[in-house]
Amino acid sequence: MDSSEALWADLKKPIVNADDYIASLRGRRMTIYFMGERVADPVDHPVIFPSINAMAETYRLASEQPELGSVRDSIAGVATNRFLHVPTGPDDLVTKHEMQRELGRRTGTCFQRCVGLDAIGSCHSITFDIDKERGTDYHQRFLAFLKRAQTANIVIGGAMTDPKGDRSKAPHQQADLDLFLHVVKRDDKGIYVSGAKMHQTGAVNSHWLIFMPTMRMTEADKDWAVVGAVRVDAPGLTYVVGRQTNDTRAVDGGSLDAGNAQFAGQESMIVFDNVFVPHAHVFMDGEWQYAAMLVERFTTYHRSSYVCKTGLGDVLIGAAAEAASHNGVEGVSHIKDKLVEMTHLNETIYSSCMAGAYRSKPMASGAYLNDEMLSNVAKHNVTRFPFEIARLAQDIAGGLVVTMPSERDLQNNEIGPLIRKFLQGKSGVATVDRMRILRLIENMTIGRNAVGYLTESLHGAGSPQAQRIQIARGMQIDKKKARARKLAGISQSTK
Amino acid sequence: MDSSEALWADLKKPIVNADDYIASLRGRRMTIYFMGERVADPVDHPVIFPSINAMAETYRLASEQPELGSVRDSIAGVATNRFLHVPTGPDDLVTKHEMQRELGRRTGTCFQRCVGLDAIGSCHSITFDIDKERGTDYHQRFLAFLKRAQTANIVIGGAMTDPKGDRSKAPHQQADLDLFLHVVKRDDKGIYVSGAKMHQTGAVNSHWLIFMPTMRMTEADKDWAVVGAVRVDAPGLTYVVGRQTNDTRAVDGGSLDAGNAQFAGQESMIVFDNVFVPHAHVFMDGEWQYAAMLVERFTTYHRSSYVCKTGLGDVLIGAAAEAASHNGVEGVSHIKDKLVEMTHLNETIYSSCMAGAYRSKPMASGAYLNDEMLSNVAKHNVTRFPFEIARLAQDIAGGLVVTMPSERDLQNNEIGPLIRKFLQGKSGVATVDRMRILRLIENMTIGRNAVGYLTESLHGAGSPQAQRIQIARGMQIDKKKARARKLAGISQSTK
Amino acid sequence: MDSSEALWADLKKPIVNADDYIASLRGRRMTIYFMGERVADPVDHPVIFPSINAMAETYRLASEQPELGSVRDSIAGVATNRFLHVPTGPDDLVTKHEMQRELGRRTGTCFQRCVGLDAIGSCHSITFDIDKERGTDYHQRFLAFLKRAQTANIVIGGAMTDPKGDRSKAPHQQADLDLFLHVVKRDDKGIYVSGAKMHQTGAVNSHWLIFMPTMRMTEADKDWAVVGAVRVDAPGLTYVVGRQTNDTRAVDGGSLDAGNAQFAGQESMIVFDNVFVPHAHVFMDGEWQYAAMLVERFTTYHRSSYVCKTGLGDVLIGAAAEAASHNGVEGVSHIKDKLVEMTHLNETIYSSCMAGAYRSKPMASGAYLNDEMLSNVAKHNVTRFPFEIARLAQDIAGGLVVTMPSERDLQNNEIGPLIRKFLQGKSGVATVDRMRILRLIENMTIGRNAVGYLTESLHGAGSPQAQRIQIARGMQIDKKKARARKLAGISQSTK
Amino acid sequence: MDSSEALWADLKKPIVNADDYIASLRGRRMTIYFMGERVADPVDHPVIFPSINAMAETYRLASEQPELGSVRDSIAGVATNRFLHVPTGPDDLVTKHEMQRELGRRTGTCFQRCVGLDAIGSCHSITFDIDKERGTDYHQRFLAFLKRAQTANIVIGGAMTDPKGDRSKAPHQQADLDLFLHVVKRDDKGIYVSGAKMHQTGAVNSHWLIFMPTMRMTEADKDWAVVGAVRVDAPGLTYVVGRQTNDTRAVDGGSLDAGNAQFAGQESMIVFDNVFVPHAHVFMDGEWQYAAMLVERFTTYHRSSYVCKTGLGDVLIGAAAEAASHNGVEGVSHIKDKLVEMTHLNETIYSSCMAGAYRSKPMASGAYLNDEMLSNVAKHNVTRFPFEIARLAQDIAGGLVVTMPSERDLQNNEIGPLIRKFLQGKSGVATVDRMRILRLIENMTIGRNAVGYLTESLHGAGSPQAQRIQIARGMQIDKKKARARKLAGISQSTK
Repeated sequence: MDSSEALWADLKKPIVNADDYIASLRGRRMTIYFMGERVADPVDHPVIFPSINAMAETYRLASEQPELGSVRDSIAGVATNRFLHVPTGPDDLVTKHEMQRELGRRTGTCFQRCVGLDAIGSCHSITFDIDKERGTDYHQRFLAFLKRAQTANIVIGGAMTDPKGDRSKAPHQQADLDLFLHVVKRDDKGIYVSGAKMHQTGAVNSHWLIFMPTMRMTEADKDWAVVGAVRVDAPGLTYVVGRQTNDTRAVDGGSLDAGNAQFAGQESMIVFDNVFVPHAHVFMDGEWQYAAMLVERFTTYHRSSYVCKTGLGDVLIGAAAEAASHNGVEGVSHIKDKLVEMTHLNETIYSSCMAGAYRSKPMASGAYLNDEMLSNVAKHNVTRFPFEIARLAQDIAGGLVVTMPSERDLQNNEIGPLIRKFLQGKSGVATVDRMRILRLIENMTIGRNAVGYLTESLHGAGSPQAQRIQIARGMQIDKKKARARKLAGISQSTK
Repeated sequence: MDSSEALWADLKKPIVNADDYIASLRGRRMTIYFMGERVADPVDHPVIFPSINAMAETYRLASEQPELGSVRDSIAGVATNRFLHVPTGPDDLVTKHEMQRELGRRTGTCFQRCVGLDAIGSCHSITFDIDKERGTDYHQRFLAFLKRAQTANIVIGGAMTDPKGDRSKAPHQQADLDLFLHVVKRDDKGIYVSGAKMHQTGAVNSHWLIFMPTMRMTEADKDWAVVGAVRVDAPGLTYVVGRQTNDTRAVDGGSLDAGNAQFAGQESMIVFDNVFVPHAHVFMDGEWQYAAMLVERFTTYHRSSYVCKTGLGDVLIGAAAEAASHNGVEGVSHIKDKLVEMTHLNETIYSSCMAGAYRSKPMASGAYLNDEMLSNVAKHNVTRFPFEIARLAQDIAGGLVVTMPSERDLQNNEIGPLIRKFLQGKSGVATVDRMRILRLIENMTIGRNAVGYLTESLHGAGSPQAQRIQIARGMQIDKKKARARKLAGISQSTK
Repeated sequence: MDSSEALWADLKKPIVNADDYIASLRGRRMTIYFMGERVADPVDHPVIFPSINAMAETYRLASEQPELGSVRDSIAGVATNRFLHVPTGPDDLVTKHEMQRELGRRTGTCFQRCVGLDAIGSCHSITFDIDKERGTDYHQRFLAFLKRAQTANIVIGGAMTDPKGDRSKAPHQQADLDLFLHVVKRDDKGIYVSGAKMHQTGAVNSHWLIFMPTMRMTEADKDWAVVGAVRVDAPGLTYVVGRQTNDTRAVDGGSLDAGNAQFAGQESMIVFDNVFVPHAHVFMDGEWQYAAMLVERFTTYHRSSYVCKTGLGDVLIGAAAEAASHNGVEGVSHIKDKLVEMTHLNETIYSSCMAGAYRSKPMASGAYLNDEMLSNVAKHNVTRFPFEIARLAQDIAGGLVVTMPSERDLQNNEIGPLIRKFLQGKSGVATVDRMRILRLIENMTIGRNAVGYLTESLHGAGSPQAQRIQIARGMQIDKKKARARKLAGISQSTK
Repeated sequence: MDSSEALWADLKKPIVNADDYIASLRGRRMTIYFMGERVADPVDHPVIFPSINAMAETYRLASEQPELGSVRDSIAGVATNRFLHVPTGPDDLVTKHEMQRELGRRTGTCFQRCVGLDAIGSCHSITFDIDKERGTDYHQRFLAFLKRAQTANIVIGGAMTDPKGDRSKAPHQQADLDLFLHVVKRDDKGIYVSGAKMHQTGAVNSHWLIFMPTMRMTEADKDWAVVGAVRVDAPGLTYVVGRQTNDTRAVDGGSLDAGNAQFAGQESMIVFDNVFVPHAHVFMDGEWQYAAMLVERFTTYHRSSYVCKTGLGDVLIGAAAEAASHNGVEGVSHIKDKLVEMTHLNETIYSSCMAGAYRSKPMASGAYLNDEMLSNVAKHNVTRFPFEIARLAQDIAGGLVVTMPSERDLQNNEIGPLIRKFLQGKSGVATVDRMRILRLIENMTIGRNAVGYLTESLHGAGSPQAQRIQIARGMQIDKKKARARKLAGISQSTK
């Protein structure tokens, strides 16, 4: 029995459904802060719970639509949640993307499991490649780790983005060496790491985290070229959950003002203070040459994962159509035209993501990776189109989306009746239903889930410029120039 | 002494500065609700005060830059705030727009006085026209009213948008006749009106409101064709202040999380229940033929007033540049290019608004009105460009803009130091300053002032389709077709 | 032997390569006009030949890259050009699209065979469906026809767009019944059709044409619901080849001014005057109920076929990069950024087209049809992005692209040397090569092949509004509304 | 009598009208080439004449609308064409822009006089400034020159863009020193200049040219810092008229195929070979410090001059509306919406140009200069919006715009009747009129005048990046950052 086994002792009983999952998050001794206070149990925290519930939806989906949400993975040989699956063919990636869109539709927000999922795919192949070239045994360690995770059917999160400090300096050049996560000590049992990972989705809601470098490394950065897995409650880990727009509506506004009371995203800063990682859970230590490749594979997977936003788009298009219907204007030509435009943009994103999955290619480990160019193109559209979809949704919804009275006003005996009287829409529509739809549109365009639908669409998996750099690398400009010269009747390259 | 004089008794001492203005709002007996509770004194309400403070800035401007913020108006013959001034030449409108941009820069939000200002210009000319054609005396009443207001240097707000109910029906056809504000009774002293006005900016912060019809009327809608002025504390008036994104950060988050702790906008629903208006303050009663013209003049004024958003744009461009500087990337070419694009879009809006002012024409009353086509074009750009400016600001700012810990976390002894350590930017930048700038960007793009910068830019002064209808009306397509036929060598109209 | 066999007598020897194909077009007795003159032999016409040569490239591709350009089709059981192939799986459609992009790269223009190809796919399935439901034998006729065509390896063109006359009237309501192609007579040998088909690409360069209705029909339009195949030299057919931008540069300007001297597109108006079609070549006659379905299947195939424009995009991106290189500015950041943007837009189109192929589904006949929504989305992007790519290409190219002297100036002894002196670019670049690349950019953005790259991208396979109508039909707005209601907490549909 | 007087001997009789102007171009001994052949008299050249006719429209306008097209300038004290006028107030610039838009409407193309006009304004002020600081007498020379020109009412053209060669090198560093125009000899009578000026509009149609440097100079470039005026028929000048899209339709296609048979633009390469300029016509010689300022003033004037494109936009919008009317679809909502969008974009350009004129400021010489920021913003919109307007025009026009038969086909006895039959639109519309409008749309979007409407809109007065550089310079980012810091609550600059 290896020394890491103890870490799995309490995870032996597999998680079967959403209730199991939520129960599994209780009673853990984690150091979590939100708004300056220690959070005893996140499940009981009204601001945090909706993000837990969004992640729980990945289990509900597996129960309700197992062909979409679960899979029998060959590593553990058991049926497991699809978020723990290494893709071994284009169909796997296609189904993954269908699942992501469906979860976007079900939750209207970020369900926070994709970083972990895409870390799994990337680590599967990169550990294989390192071992092959350098005689290490990272791949076996990783498979053993993943087998346990699949068997327990737990949530694996990721942790990637370092604070970076001065962007013009390498990790080893920073004034504070902790600005990139690094190995601070090694002994015969394992390694110790310190640093921090920024704005990580769903960390608090996970069971384990895979930490990875965030960018290309040089030899001098060896100690920063480290990949490993830790339990989220490992000693030395501290979480600071970030503030989101309108987060406190979960507390102050009843269920209506929240817009989407059930589901939300979550991001936190994770501080690593001398966190121990036994060898069994170390998947790279010092192989700096592979850092860039790992990042590229991860981002190629992850940029296509933004197909989830088309699920959010579906909800927002539906909400806009419903709002138009409440106003009795759904049939007006400019309204219809805006719904078509929203759909067109949404499906354009979808098509780019899907094409990248269909055109995936196997890596040496057998894992399939999305087409890199198309994945970048897909994500780049994600940095643009949801903003226009959101603008059009607000256009259709009308100004009331930001000027409405609160639920408490509606409940007030004096003014509640006035609101019901004056906010009535088309005959037969309950005013409260009209308000609910408008609050949902607020939620997704300028409220809590706009964090996920808009800002995260810009920056998740790399900011717009990151995609442009990859597109530039892949655009084969010399081949294109040769085509042009040929058609222009130029016989020789002029270079 | 006319019967209306008593209503001015407590407003005799003119407001000189911002402090006077704020003091003048205290101790009024108004029926105001926010989040289900009666607001005793809005000046003391932490969520409402920033909106009062934004309006107070119009007085500060008049004190600090009197050439911009004040004017000697010939009606009262005294120096008065420019927001009470009837424009009598293109230069007046040009200076008005400069004032609006400057106030946008000073507050980063909606300062809420433009509806009242544009109501003044519209009523000045429309009362003149009605009198001339129908022998009424509305214009003298209006001048007397305005003289008092200018002398007292008070805030006049507006009230325009009716709830509208079923959009396919005229006011008199609605199931509930109150869905458009209307005269419910007339006696020898005045009229009584009932109904409601929606999402009105700054009503609670005003001293008087001018209410106006919101659209074209037919003869059957005579009782709905009513314009008048009421004190904001008139019996029968109830205000429900709407919820804004992140409004409660004013309470729960210290000053940092608010992003812009000093200034915010405000919208409320105003319910009129049998409110008495003495004849002296009635400026239209039954002249339904003039309702459309009043609305058109008002919107022509008001659409150009959206030049204020270029002042907000200045702030947001500056914030993005500052954020880039904090990250040490201000000189990177794609960052510079984005700042240029933001500026280009911002100045395009500005140019359209200004051109409409320079090309203003006098109406019969002597008041000048912006060029209608250009004013519509200007506002139509406002429904698009701030959204792209906001997207680019978030692009430059980075994901931290939505994932940052709260001010309370920063103050916490355990995690405060960790945040300072890991959120440090370029050497020499205080982490708290970096956070402040990012919170300001959050405030303007997905937070409280995004209500004003984005959604209000869409819907204020009419939704995008309203401008398209006016552009269609003004586009002189027959003249353009004739030009095309001539150049194409077609001798005759083919119609 | 059926009566139709004679029509194939001279096509018995299969076309093997491009030379065979060009030879096969000689000596045909067709009635072709161009610029008011009868064209004796289009192969010898300098304006028309580049379009023949572009189509010949489909045979060159089959010779040089047979895996892409040819296929063993099960109907004839022989290797045939892929443009004669009925797709029987997603991979067939994927390879079709790869072929189309490659031909776009090879020719930089419209190679004119896609209408025929997509007519084949549509007729295969629609004849099957009609037969099944109505006991006709169209499918066998069609298979027999296609078998002969595949065996002879000829070019099958299409003919679809009727002149339409008054757009508000159905075919049978038109003042002139010929404004839609229709059956004017039937006898025991076959049918006789009259009418016209507009702006048909490549008709003059084909061997046979399949004519089809252009829109939904009603029972009163039965005689207009007709599908059949005719030899291009059938008695009664007249072709008027349309003028293209810069078409006469093929005559007046040497090879340089043409920009792309080898390849061009071609469109013609085809007039049918009592053209006989034997029963063996009639594939629908009166089954008006199937007209709309035929059109929908055809456009679904054909909208994805616009993936060819990404091949043209490759050429134009390459040309812009080459022009930048000639100016010594290829490394300048704003130039690189524009090349990235062009690539991003080009690959977005590609991804949408490919996703629609991968997600194709079988119809009853066994033929596979692209995903309808994605095919419409793909084409809709084609109506936008090439225009922006072209604008960016001109931006990079500089104004010289439209102000350059002619080739004849270059050859003139007086001014040729001056042009060489003053138009020199970066050291080492021949001025004539610089001019060639700029002429190619002119050719694709404002010259002859801009017809295909821009205007045809708008209107081919249906104008933008046609796609919007299909997107509206497929957008499942009720499902989306239900999702929104659920997340907003509305229990019941409010309809 | 100064030595320059002889050069004016044949220009003593002022040009009064368009006929005079055209007559004045006859019989000049100029060295002009087009398509490799010497052009004896451009007035008689069918390809060149439409450009002369477009310029002649500036005289027609002066005759027909003198308040717009002419002005009494104080320099000569006579009424002269407004294209010879130095603007001495905002109203002058406003009227100038109205004139430019009207000429755009009248001609549908580039009328080619704005470079000369904007050279006049720039030279007026820059000569004044040089004299004041360096004791030269350039300003008097310039006034004397301009007085003569105004008195004779001739056309003054400009000549600015040098070939530039290797963009990374200064003028004096070029391998061939002629790649920028420079002084090659000086004697007591004057100077001798050699070099070339590229793609100059209307040079062949002018009487005199003012040549100016094209960019910032250093001291080593002194000989290149030269400004002067020469007669267009001065010895040593050679013109090569560039090819335009569809230029030969003026010859080969009758009047219909040209689309706009009367008017076109013109660009040429002008070679200077040791051209003598007497001192009286030298306005800068060696004052390299002023080169950049001259260019900036010129481009500030000239970028606003692109308001002319809104006149072309008026024509194109009208043509699209007429085409829609021919098809009977003018009332369809998506057509109307596209016309509105075209108008909105067109008026946005207009508003930016006009705002820059209204906000003009005087320079030391008394000449007024447009606001620099707004002029750059205006032109930057010109590099974008006409492309979208053109795309929408083609969308409305339909594919026929590029597939139509020629006029000669229409005249052919066999096929003419077929074309009339099948291209008929709505009842009552002559087919030939329908074709004329479509040819006009072709002309402006992908034909000869697309050169002026599209490519020139990109590159004239500087390519897009040139405007971005100026916008960056003017955007006062430090002031904006200070505003942001203040609202964010940051007390001190963090720099």
